[in-house]
Amino acid sequence: MSDKILVFGHQNPDSDAIGSSMSYSYLCNHRKFGQLNTEVVALGEPNEETQFVLDYFGVKAPRVIKRVQDEGVDTVILTDHNEFQQSAEDIAEVTIYGVVDHHRIANFQTASPLFMDVQPVGSASSIVYRQFVRDGVEIPRELAGLMLAGLISDTLLLKSPTTHPTDLPVADALAKIAGVDLQEFGLAMLKAGTNLASKDGDTLIDIDAKTFELNGSKVRVAQVNTVDIDEVLARRDELETAITNAIKANGYSDFVLMVTDILESNSEIIELGEHPELVEKAFHFELKDHHAFLAGAVSRKKQVVPQLTEAFEG
Amino acid sequence: MSDKILVFGHQNPDSDAIGSSMSYSYLCNHRKFGQLNTEVVALGEPNEETQFVLDYFGVKAPRVIKRVQDEGVDTVILTDHNEFQQSAEDIAEVTIYGVVDHHRIANFQTASPLFMDVQPVGSASSIVYRQFVRDGVEIPRELAGLMLAGLISDTLLLKSPTTHPTDLPVADALAKIAGVDLQEFGLAMLKAGTNLASKDGDTLIDIDAKTFELNGSKVRVAQVNTVDIDEVLARRDELETAITNAIKANGYSDFVLMVTDILESNSEIIELGEHPELVEKAFHFELKDHHAFLAGAVSRKKQVVPQLTEAFEG
Repeated sequence: MSDKILVFGHQNPDSDAIGSSMSYSYLCNHRKFGQLNTEVVALGEPNEETQFVLDYFGVKAPRVIKRVQDEGVDTVILTDHNEFQQSAEDIAEVTIYGVVDHHRIANFQTASPLFMDVQPVGSASSIVYRQFVRDGVEIPRELAGLMLAGLISDTLLLKSPTTHPTDLPVADALAKIAGVDLQEFGLAMLKAGTNLASKDGDTLIDIDAKTFELNGSKVRVAQVNTVDIDEVLARRDELETAITNAIKANGYSDFVLMVTDILESNSEIIELGEHPELVEKAFHFELKDHHAFLAGAVSRKKQVVPQLTEAFEG
Repeated sequence: MSDKILVFGHQNPDSDAIGSSMSYSYLCNHRKFGQLNTEVVALGEPNEETQFVLDYFGVKAPRVIKRVQDEGVDTVILTDHNEFQQSAEDIAEVTIYGVVDHHRIANFQTASPLFMDVQPVGSASSIVYRQFVRDGVEIPRELAGLMLAGLISDTLLLKSPTTHPTDLPVADALAKIAGVDLQEFGLAMLKAGTNLASKDGDTLIDIDAKTFELNGSKVRVAQVNTVDIDEVLARRDELETAITNAIKANGYSDFVLMVTDILESNSEIIELGEHPELVEKAFHFELKDHHAFLAGAVSRKKQVVPQLTEAFEG
């Protein structure tokens, strides 16, 4: 085995998974103390939003891997995730050197002590930015842009309730280094990620989807962002067929899809599966034909997953 | 419920559990940004070593609690531990605001994002010390002494393999603020903790004991430090009776006792329970009459628990 450490974000990588992993790998290789030999990789191809950002800054996406040990490596650093089912296929068999994350901790364990920098802030990139400052390492322009994209993507341009007060000066600082206008760049990248018309139902429900183990149930929670929610809801039959197929193929007990209006900050929820009554309990609403409107909800992490967890485990 | 946050270390608190929790509570209440309203408590009475340190610096031990919600509080910060079975009885029912720890992560999960500062260093107190420096908060003399005691206790005066290179300057800095000679104070406090002659077997095996869930087995791993290992081993019948009673009373599958010679840095292992063959596999030795010698082993965390974990889960 090589002494190299692989750094990567979660499966179905979004802009924060890519931005935080690329930046953290660079930081580990360039800091004065505790320097490491790391390589950034990814557990999937970038989505359209992230590809827009990579193109904007002229950066190539990390190469895609599935299993760590196939790369001749046995040590990893995780960014933007910790739950094993969102990670590399053989994550339980390798050594986790460190974690930089801003999610809840679940389905995660190690045999030995490790580094964990977990903070309830808007993005994993926000945490990486602060480590750059702490370690006194200069941030290359393109990495500032990628971290900024991670923060904008996860907070829907700092409007999501997951936004932490400290994220605002971080966004300003990163925009300055990246040489972009925060609002203009932010809207352009978010819009690039909502080009849904050209995608089929199977693709739509997998753009940004994570699986959670809730009290023995395997719950898939997916999110689609749009600037035209009616356009997406006009395709409900196609979406529900895709969801039904995904449930059968992967053994999910439930599939919860958030269709999020990023301009108005609301979501339509579609639930298919075994526990509609628990989903109703979670959000204090009534599903009609598997659908319900969730006013003000834009954050899966803060406004959906904790509520589902409580309902399923309560 | 009050807006107060309780800060505490693990059950059977040792000097690092007490030192890190008292210091971290003080830091949270006194830092300029993100100030909190915290109270330090403990999940048990201090052991003799810790009581020596508290007396040395003229500090009272934190009051003892068992359940968080009995205190009218629903939010906590954990120091020096994360595994739920080492924490408050109702830990799974309350909100974990933050964790400062230097152990492996296991049997730990949260419903929401949180603060975690976990580092593979010699003590949780080492991490708290660095947060004081980062936040620019002056360290009171007695808290420097308590953090130093936590570091000395967990690393057996910086000789354990759990000692991190960065712990050495931390120890020097804390000794300076505390106004003590590192070696002299360290030996005095360690010796105060090895006054074993006056304790019965039941007490000895519970001085520093933690329970681990290993692949469905409930394994108790206890450690007794001594400067006279023969004196302890002369009491083997009494110890084995106490262990057998503890297994029956608590449903442990196995009880592993390390009797550690802190001057020579070796341990005698006593194993009673259902899986002696897994314990033999873990340490590549043969148990004779439930006993075996483990040369160079002084650290439960680094030289015993990972090996047991691998053997039980392999």
